[in-house]
Amino acid sequence: MLISELQTPALLVEQAALRHNLDTMTAALPGARLRPHVKAHKCTSLAKLQYANGHRGFTCATVREVEAMAGAGLGEDLLLANEVLDTRRLGRLVDDGHRVTVAVDSAETIEAAVAGGVREVLIDVNVGLPRCGCSPDMAGALADLARRSGLTVRGVMGYEGHLMLVEKEAERRDSTEQAMEHLLAASAAVGGELISAGGTGTYAVNTWADEIQAGSYALMDTAYQQLGQPFRQALFVLGRVISVSSGWAVADVGLKALSLDHGLPRIDGAEVWFCSDEHTTFRPDGMPAPAVGDLVRVQPAHVDPTVALHDSLYLVDGPDVLDRWPVDMRGWR
Amino acid sequence: MLISELQTPALLVEQAALRHNLDTMTAALPGARLRPHVKAHKCTSLAKLQYANGHRGFTCATVREVEAMAGAGLGEDLLLANEVLDTRRLGRLVDDGHRVTVAVDSAETIEAAVAGGVREVLIDVNVGLPRCGCSPDMAGALADLARRSGLTVRGVMGYEGHLMLVEKEAERRDSTEQAMEHLLAASAAVGGELISAGGTGTYAVNTWADEIQAGSYALMDTAYQQLGQPFRQALFVLGRVISVSSGWAVADVGLKALSLDHGLPRIDGAEVWFCSDEHTTFRPDGMPAPAVGDLVRVQPAHVDPTVALHDSLYLVDGPDVLDRWPVDMRGWR
Repeated sequence: MLISELQTPALLVEQAALRHNLDTMTAALPGARLRPHVKAHKCTSLAKLQYANGHRGFTCATVREVEAMAGAGLGEDLLLANEVLDTRRLGRLVDDGHRVTVAVDSAETIEAAVAGGVREVLIDVNVGLPRCGCSPDMAGALADLARRSGLTVRGVMGYEGHLMLVEKEAERRDSTEQAMEHLLAASAAVGGELISAGGTGTYAVNTWADEIQAGSYALMDTAYQQLGQPFRQALFVLGRVISVSSGWAVADVGLKALSLDHGLPRIDGAEVWFCSDEHTTFRPDGMPAPAVGDLVRVQPAHVDPTVALHDSLYLVDGPDVLDRWPVDMRGWR
Repeated sequence: MLISELQTPALLVEQAALRHNLDTMTAALPGARLRPHVKAHKCTSLAKLQYANGHRGFTCATVREVEAMAGAGLGEDLLLANEVLDTRRLGRLVDDGHRVTVAVDSAETIEAAVAGGVREVLIDVNVGLPRCGCSPDMAGALADLARRSGLTVRGVMGYEGHLMLVEKEAERRDSTEQAMEHLLAASAAVGGELISAGGTGTYAVNTWADEIQAGSYALMDTAYQQLGQPFRQALFVLGRVISVSSGWAVADVGLKALSLDHGLPRIDGAEVWFCSDEHTTFRPDGMPAPAVGDLVRVQPAHVDPTVALHDSLYLVDGPDVLDRWPVDMRGWR
């Protein structure tokens, strides 16, 4: 099948760029040094390539992602790096022989882990991003409570999400060091063998965590492109020009095919004006004059919520569609 | 089933508010005066209520939406108010006895309509929003071309999308009048019996179009709330508080459960700080101190791309879940 035969909009993954990204990250963080985050691609076919590269543990953001990974035979060591209050579906996976660890940051989430049949937890520590995670000075007490409740505490996690897109690498490194000081202090109080943190933005500068929870590096987006890291844009939303006016053109890629939370998408050789539900309006700026029917590749600003809008990723090489990968981890049910 | 038993995040539709919205719009624009736009809810169960209210024609934005509506028995008069280059799926619906009209704004889209077996078109006219639609002075020539190509030209459409959220009603009315002057001029040149335009923002002030393509009124969002129209918020993203810190709390509703393109969502009694993939961080501001496990109702800023992130709408009344409606028109394949 050819790309030109695809119904648009469609998510394309360029095989060579994906291969480059996976191998570059694996070279930097081999084996257990990387715990790939699947929330960025929600695709077990892609996770299998990460597994084949030697990464046996994975990070998930939802119960659904954990279930889909286990169902795909990738349940050796799944970390749900998020707080959940109903862990029964996770407990069933544990009963079936999968290894599932869940993040806890409160007495309630510890109680929920016990109630649902989860046996292993990480203490989630706030390292500066105002989101989940306990205060670092509470981590030891929570670990004690978890152990008294019969849980195994594998260690700590703390996500320095507020530092992922800090532009200057030196500043990113220094801020990450400060954030990780909190996590190391918590780790000393908690014990266990794991210090889990990081993401694509800090993978190279976070030398304090045992394992890095990076996900975006595989497919990439324009927000991460700005950091000048050695990863290539592998994800594109393929569209068609459906209308050409004097001064602008319109592609059939809109808000239902990409997420704007990190800003407007990019089209090489054009200035993007705005996106509507099913449209991107752009002014050609260097590209050949667009004609109705032309294929356009739109680069989204934020990979994770963009992928979540689609049911498939198309693996492509030049004009050829090599494979269709279901986005089989989306939704929550 | 109770709301409290739902897996979160989940999209709730309050039955009473939906009923109020549907009946209020039908009273204002009965029967053929309204051609409800299904892109706002992507749900044939909801479209059936609009049909039962007396609206037999519907507006769609994608081929998939047209197919799903026809498949649900709602194919009496479906307008694809968008340009498409491959109309074969539409042609098959026409062959099966459904009435499908497609928007055209160029020689290429006219050719595509003919090639795929579509028989009826509207000339899409630009009335001020830089998106699709031909220049008004080209509409007559395009209609001639369409008729020479064997198509029936039912009339014109023109979407004044740039005016939907103009705050002052008088200004919205005056600007709409100017936009519709272009459409009426085009209509005079094109002929046919239809002048299709408008949306929820201009439904009350656009007295020039024969039929209004409104969709958002049924479920509503915070952007449209600002206009002070007689529609109630019927759509909520249900979440649970999963983490509470000193000064903020976190609900399990994030970028994958609502769209930020019209801004941050609203939580009554709280100030929303930011959204991450699976989280909304908020500061309580008037609400009772949140506790882990509390249910939270998040009001999205833009209904259409929010619904497209979910596979189901839950119809609710007070604490009860009355029904689960599949979001059966999403995607494009």
